[in-house]
Amino acid sequence: MARMTREEIYAKAVELVQNSRGKLEVVGKVRASNLEELSIAYTPGVAEPTRRVRDNRALQFQYTSRASMLAIVTDGSAVLGLGNIGPEAAMVVMEGKGVMLKHFAGVDPVPLCLNTQDPEEIIRVVKAVEPSFGFIFLEDISAPRCFHIVERLSQELSIPVFHDDQDGTAVSICAAVRNVLRLTGRKPGDLRIVINGAGAAGLATAKLLLELGLEDLTLCDIQGALSDKTQNLDPYRAAFAAKTNRRRAADLTEALAGADVLIGLSVAGVVSKEMVRGMNKDAAVFCLANPDPEILPTDAAEAGARFTGSGRFDYANTINNLHAFPGIVRGTLDAKAKNITTGMKIAAVRAIASFVPEDKLQDDFLMPNALDPELTKAVAEAVKDAAVRDGVAGAW
Amino acid sequence: MARMTREEIYAKAVELVQNSRGKLEVVGKVRASNLEELSIAYTPGVAEPTRRVRDNRALQFQYTSRASMLAIVTDGSAVLGLGNIGPEAAMVVMEGKGVMLKHFAGVDPVPLCLNTQDPEEIIRVVKAVEPSFGFIFLEDISAPRCFHIVERLSQELSIPVFHDDQDGTAVSICAAVRNVLRLTGRKPGDLRIVINGAGAAGLATAKLLLELGLEDLTLCDIQGALSDKTQNLDPYRAAFAAKTNRRRAADLTEALAGADVLIGLSVAGVVSKEMVRGMNKDAAVFCLANPDPEILPTDAAEAGARFTGSGRFDYANTINNLHAFPGIVRGTLDAKAKNITTGMKIAAVRAIASFVPEDKLQDDFLMPNALDPELTKAVAEAVKDAAVRDGVAGAW
Repeated sequence: MARMTREEIYAKAVELVQNSRGKLEVVGKVRASNLEELSIAYTPGVAEPTRRVRDNRALQFQYTSRASMLAIVTDGSAVLGLGNIGPEAAMVVMEGKGVMLKHFAGVDPVPLCLNTQDPEEIIRVVKAVEPSFGFIFLEDISAPRCFHIVERLSQELSIPVFHDDQDGTAVSICAAVRNVLRLTGRKPGDLRIVINGAGAAGLATAKLLLELGLEDLTLCDIQGALSDKTQNLDPYRAAFAAKTNRRRAADLTEALAGADVLIGLSVAGVVSKEMVRGMNKDAAVFCLANPDPEILPTDAAEAGARFTGSGRFDYANTINNLHAFPGIVRGTLDAKAKNITTGMKIAAVRAIASFVPEDKLQDDFLMPNALDPELTKAVAEAVKDAAVRDGVAGAW
Repeated sequence: MARMTREEIYAKAVELVQNSRGKLEVVGKVRASNLEELSIAYTPGVAEPTRRVRDNRALQFQYTSRASMLAIVTDGSAVLGLGNIGPEAAMVVMEGKGVMLKHFAGVDPVPLCLNTQDPEEIIRVVKAVEPSFGFIFLEDISAPRCFHIVERLSQELSIPVFHDDQDGTAVSICAAVRNVLRLTGRKPGDLRIVINGAGAAGLATAKLLLELGLEDLTLCDIQGALSDKTQNLDPYRAAFAAKTNRRRAADLTEALAGADVLIGLSVAGVVSKEMVRGMNKDAAVFCLANPDPEILPTDAAEAGARFTGSGRFDYANTINNLHAFPGIVRGTLDAKAKNITTGMKIAAVRAIASFVPEDKLQDDFLMPNALDPELTKAVAEAVKDAAVRDGVAGAW
């Protein structure tokens, strides 16, 4: 196909939602159009399976759609590149995400766009609706509120909780970094990594990199490397900065001098060619700001980066949470897991990275095709196995 | 078809939910299986309709599925004949109701079975999820909590709220009573009515009958006619008893002596042939306890009732909320109404009653076929027109 311009895509996107009146629909899996069907699907028949679930709640996962019902929960506080746009506008994005979740993970996605941005209230609401869902998929909730929300819900719910902007992004990035290690023959300890952007994705990525043994991390925000001098540092970021950030840097240029990997999770245009020139040999520049990255992959390459990547599908090395979330969701549900453990996330990282076979792996082919249904299957299988190993499977 | 026994229906009902793994599914209305589709349905295209809704929230009803998304909200406190069975078991029933709502009203039903029975908490949760839905359909919430919840939500939400166990039932019953008036040539003021069961449906029916000019009402509970002597009378029932119940009665037998209409909204078997024998000439006995009525229609007829009716489809004169809720929901949404007014409910009563043409109307043909899609259309049209008349249409 001829590539469409951004304006053409926008025009088609508006036309699409107008014509279809949204992107999701709820349909019956059974018929009830005559008396016989109605008596079986509804009254009086429904009384019998209902009584059985009343007497044994675990049967709900067999007798209702709960096992595949996934709530996409957002407060619209940190949507794409658009920021805090509220629940009504956020629903447009959640429905798009729902279409992906259906297509790639085979779940039944229900957007719940909430009229509150109070973390305690969000926790309350999710706990209240829990009995209808098998999975809570948090989306576009701003940091640091999202850390608290995920932490509390993971402890207090009996079903898995996942914040895609944290862990979906983190898993995809870690897979790309893992394949840089494969291609360069370096060890995790060899890489000096700078993460620009200390939001939901930045912190989650730093955390997962640490778990994978990549410990030379410098997490920067707009004030430079996080340190005890950073203004308005919340407890989450403060604890994190104390664990990482051995290196001090007044700004991103200083942080990048001699670094091996730049992970951009901030905003468009904040990385210059000059900054990339200061990086180490065989540098990797993965800039994921959406929809326009911190520096274009082509510019980063011109400035000497060996590996470049972005969240976009129109450049090589797409690093997108679409690589991660369908398989993680599917595998977690297939395992009937109660929680998503670090082991399950690491299994997803490995499965995504390994999906690019040795003989295909190249500087501009670090990541598998995110749209390949076989990728979802491979990630799901790995995540499910890890859930069993970690003892969280078979919860229902 | 050969009529199935209750046991056969139950066995098939269990088989059905097991095989289909529940009764509802969420599907994408748009495709996203290749890069072009994905760029239009999700990123980067989605940014444009999202920005437009951010700048004009009313567009959400055009650009998302909100206009047809209906939350079926329950706390599982008063389910069918099963009582307080909790949210997990209630979901089996809500999915069945969802299938009806999809089939007859063409909406997208999402069961939200809540983990709380605290009215304030239920109100809070519904208010929080409001931005994702165009209609709040409350179901199986016990009285008197449901009165308070409906009242508060109707005031505080910008979308319509409907409790089927109150108004769906009330509308259907009033339609049957209206056709008794048509057949007997009596006036509303002529009928002496006894309602047995002062729960959600009993009070809502009494209220709507009053609005229709049927003022000689005696509302009974297990202690007999409600009065200032009734134990544990909550403020809702107390206010109501003061308005109706001119007649005192120590028990149902006494209340029914000389009455014209019995409306049973209580439990199976509490009405005897003896009680029916004490009623006036041309008596109507509409006993709707589910799945087994207060007295079988055949027994009521043997005891001299001219008109009999039940919620069941295997006797004549089925009086089921299926007559009412699909058209009310559809008409309210078609009108883009903010509230469901008394005028809209009365319009539904008239539309259902009038759907039985003069030349078909008979003692054993008081009600139209609840499964006739033309009935839903007629009710929806009437409700929509009433919304316009009452000035609540065009809210979005």
